[in-house]
Parts: sequence; C-alpha cells; structure tokens
Amino acid sequence: MEVIREIAPLRGRIKEIKGENMSIGFVPTMGFLHEGHLSLMRKAREENDYLVISIFVNPLQFGVGEDYEEYPRDLERDKELAASVGCDLIFSPPVKEMYPRGYSSFVEVERLTERLCGASRPGHFRGVTTVVTKLFNLISPDRAYFGQKDAQQAIIIQKMIQDLNMDLELVILPTVREEDGLAMSSRNKYLTPYQREQALLIYKALQKAQENIEVGEKNTERIRESIREIILQGEEAVIDYIEIVDTYEFQPLSILQGSCLIAVAVKLGEVRLIDNIMVEV
Amino acid sequence: MEVIREIAPLRGRIKEIKGENMSIGFVPTMGFLHEGHLSLMRKAREENDYLVISIFVNPLQFGVGEDYEEYPRDLERDKELAASVGCDLIFSPPVKEMYPRGYSSFVEVERLTERLCGASRPGHFRGVTTVVTKLFNLISPDRAYFGQKDAQQAIIIQKMIQDLNMDLELVILPTVREEDGLAMSSRNKYLTPYQREQALLIYKALQKAQENIEVGEKNTERIRESIREIILQGEEAVIDYIEIVDTYEFQPLSILQGSCLIAVAVKLGEVRLIDNIMVEV
Repeated sequence: MEVIREIAPLRGRIKEIKGENMSIGFVPTMGFLHEGHLSLMRKAREENDYLVISIFVNPLQFGVGEDYEEYPRDLERDKELAASVGCDLIFSPPVKEMYPRGYSSFVEVERLTERLCGASRPGHFRGVTTVVTKLFNLISPDRAYFGQKDAQQAIIIQKMIQDLNMDLELVILPTVREEDGLAMSSRNKYLTPYQREQALLIYKALQKAQENIEVGEKNTERIRESIREIILQGEEAVIDYIEIVDTYEFQPLSILQGSCLIAVAVKLGEVRLIDNIMVEV
Repeated sequence: MEVIREIAPLRGRIKEIKGENMSIGFVPTMGFLHEGHLSLMRKAREENDYLVISIFVNPLQFGVGEDYEEYPRDLERDKELAASVGCDLIFSPPVKEMYPRGYSSFVEVERLTERLCGASRPGHFRGVTTVVTKLFNLISPDRAYFGQKDAQQAIIIQKMIQDLNMDLELVILPTVREEDGLAMSSRNKYLTPYQREQALLIYKALQKAQENIEVGEKNTERIRESIREIILQGEEAVIDYIEIVDTYEFQPLSILQGSCLIAVAVKLGEVRLIDNIMVEV
C-alpha cells in the first residue's frame, strides 16, 4: 500500500492503473477510520481491481465555530487499518494541495442542500460536493462508496453525479453500528461515558419509530413526537432536528408515503451526532 | 461524421474512442458556426485523433431579457461546416437532455466572474462553467479549445479546470476577425448595415489603444477615454464597459503593468458585442 500526498504523483499512478484497464474503487474519508469506513472499503475491494481511499479533513465543509481543528486525526493508525482491508493507495493531501492560494471554484447542489443538516450547517454541503468533485476528477473511480449514515450527503452526491454527468457509480452501504446500536462515527470518541449512554437513545428512538410504523403508524407528527420524547430522556441532549422527508426532494411529509427518510441530529455537549433510518411505505 | 443528440449513445461512442486510446479534441459551441469556431476546430483536428464539437445554445448562460430565443440556429449549415474541417462527432442535445426536470447542480467560479461581462450579465458565467463541466464529463477530452474573443470566459474556465482538478488541457486561440477587423460572432448577423459600420469602431478603438501603448502610454484612464471617444463616434453605440484589468484576478489597473486585458462590451441596438486585446507591459 502506498501513501501519496501530492496531486502530480497521484495523477501519475492513476494513469498507470487506468492504462492497465483496472477498475478503481474509491472511498473518500476524513480519516480516523472506524468499522463504518472499513465496511465501505471491503466492499470496494471486492468489486474493483484497485482500491483508493482519501484521508482529508476538508476545511471547506466545516462552518465557523465547528470542530475542524478538533476533528480527530491519526494517519498512522489509519494506514494500518486501510492496509488490513487491502487498500492499494491512500491519498492524503495537505490543505494547500487541495486549496492553494486564490482557490475560487465550487460545486453546489441547490434545494436538497437547504434542509436537515444543510439548514443547521450552512455551506457544509457545498464544501462536500466541491471536495468530492475534486477527488473524483483526480482519482476517476469506476465506483465510489458512501455510507447510509450520512444519508443526505449520499443523496446529494448522487444528484450531483447525475446532474453533472459524472461517469461513475455511487454505491451506498448500510450504517454500521456499535454492538448496542450507536451509529459509528469518528466523533463518538469525544463523548463522555455518560454522554455515550445518552447517545444510545438516538438509535432507540429510531427503532421505536420503526416499530410504530410497522404496526401502521403513518402520522409523522406523532412519530417525531415519540422520537423527541425518547431522545430527551438524555439529560444533556439538545435536538438539532428530527425530520421526516421524502428521499427525492427532502420535502417534509405529514403522512408517511413512498420512500421516506427519518433523520435526526442531536448535540450532546459539544458533540453533534446524526443518525437516520429509511422506510418504504 | 456523426450527429448524436442523446447522452447514452454519446457515452457509448466516447468509451469506444477511449478504448482505442485515441486522443479527443473538443470544441464547445452554441452553433451558427463561423470562421472563429472553424479555426478552433482545425487546430483541434490537427492536435488530436478524434474531434468532437458540441452545438448547444445553453439557456443557463442567458439572463432574463437576453437573446436566448433569438440566438441564431442552423444545424444543417453547421453540419456541413463541421464536416468540412474534419469533425468526427457533433453532440447536439435538446435542452431536456442537459437539464432534465429537477436539475439542480451548478459549478461556480467566484471573484473572476463578478467583473466585466459577469457584472453586466449576472449568472452568465455560472451557466457557462456548469455546461462546460457537464460537457467535459460527457466527452472527457484531452484538449478543449476556446477563443480569445471571449477572454474572460477562457480565463474563468482555465481557473475552473485548475481548481477542480479536471484532467485536460485548455487551448486558447486568437480572435478571428472579418477582413475589416470586426471580431467574428454569431450575433454579427443581427447588425443592420449601418450598425455593422459602427461596430467596426470597436476594433479601431482597440487598435488605437494598442498603438498608444506601443509608444509608451501606460495611464489606463487616458487609454479608456480614447477608446470611449472612438466607439461613441457610432451614433447608436451604447458602451456597457471598457475595462483594463490584470489577467489573473481581473483587478482594474490604473497603470498598465504585466499581463493586461483591455476588454469592451458595446450594445448596438439589441446586439451586444464584445472584443478585447491583451498587452504585455
């Protein structure tokens, strides 16, 4: 496995790989890899001849006052984990390599980016779509892998690929959870033991919603209320949003219908956690 | 030469060409081809194994009240001209193929797009960079060819390619002029004979500026004044802008220095004409 930090040698290696007609699978990450990332990488390993991952904490997708500086980083550990699942190449550029002085080009997906996390984090998805476009252009993957945990991100990137006629396949894989159900996230490590306990209520609330839906509940106001009640059993929990929307336009639904996304964002102290389930009604 | 109107068969053909390791030259146009386009196509023909042009009047780059509907179109004539310079493929999609219902992704270059034509035509360059990104993704050219006549457009696209790490070479070729010096443009055909006479003053004014600069003039206010005087000899001429800027950031210069762009936009009746010269001081 090789680690490349600059664009020129990356391009060189990718040209070689393409020249040998090998398919490229790509997993973009911000590092501090966990089982969620590894599940994407294993699938990408299986489905492609060559596996590239990127490790880049992208400043453009963090807002003022967010945790860009504090976001956990550990390249040595990440290298070992990536090698353990058969990664061929890690692209891990410094910020200057991605955004040199005078940088001024951006990719934006309208509407879909305005709701849910987009409403709480203005500019966040613009940072995501911009960096992902750059990485796609640099790596020219045949397939890129994203987790269902960031459902809105995955749907926005799918829309961008389609709208801008990017020539690759997006693969979205299920959220990987800790044994007790908490969605894996690099940010979980910042939870105190007591917050960690409270965080579990997020998944509990989503499971309860799923149960209610399975026995016929369709009223989204009641579903949201039940989610809210469970999450707020956590003393420190501050709810950012609980939204029930269609998965095409993220329009809020009053009655469940079709393909629905139930998504929540909760703050526990300084740590913002998201989770979601999708239901077909 | 083949004409393709839809994305799926275009992708198929491009994959074949790439599979044979042929290099692709690409000339994006809005059709109604003239010698300016043909000069780009000849160069692209010379430098690449396979020549693709697009003919697409891009609604996204026209503002409200601009000439989208009136923009001249003549695909039959364009086909003959393209074939005459050895074009292999024309991609000429209907609007719905490029912007289906619900379309919502855009590429934007900040700052460079705010001045000159960007100030007069808000959203224009966002339309240009978006459609050019789509076409680059569809055609994956090794080289794309643009005319110096749209100097700001060329510089913005160069910036976008660099910022977003697009993997192709931009080739910018000199403005092609009528025998009397008027810059070729598909819009020239809408000039009345009297407007056509007045339009010539634009190039005369730029030539005069060049002469003044050659004998040592560096004061941009005086250069602009001399350009203004000459253009306004045309009774119907309404000046949109006369700008003298550096070619990197389009910052206005008070004294000529380095690589400078002298750009003008003039309306004659309903027809908006642009022209420019570059000078190295």
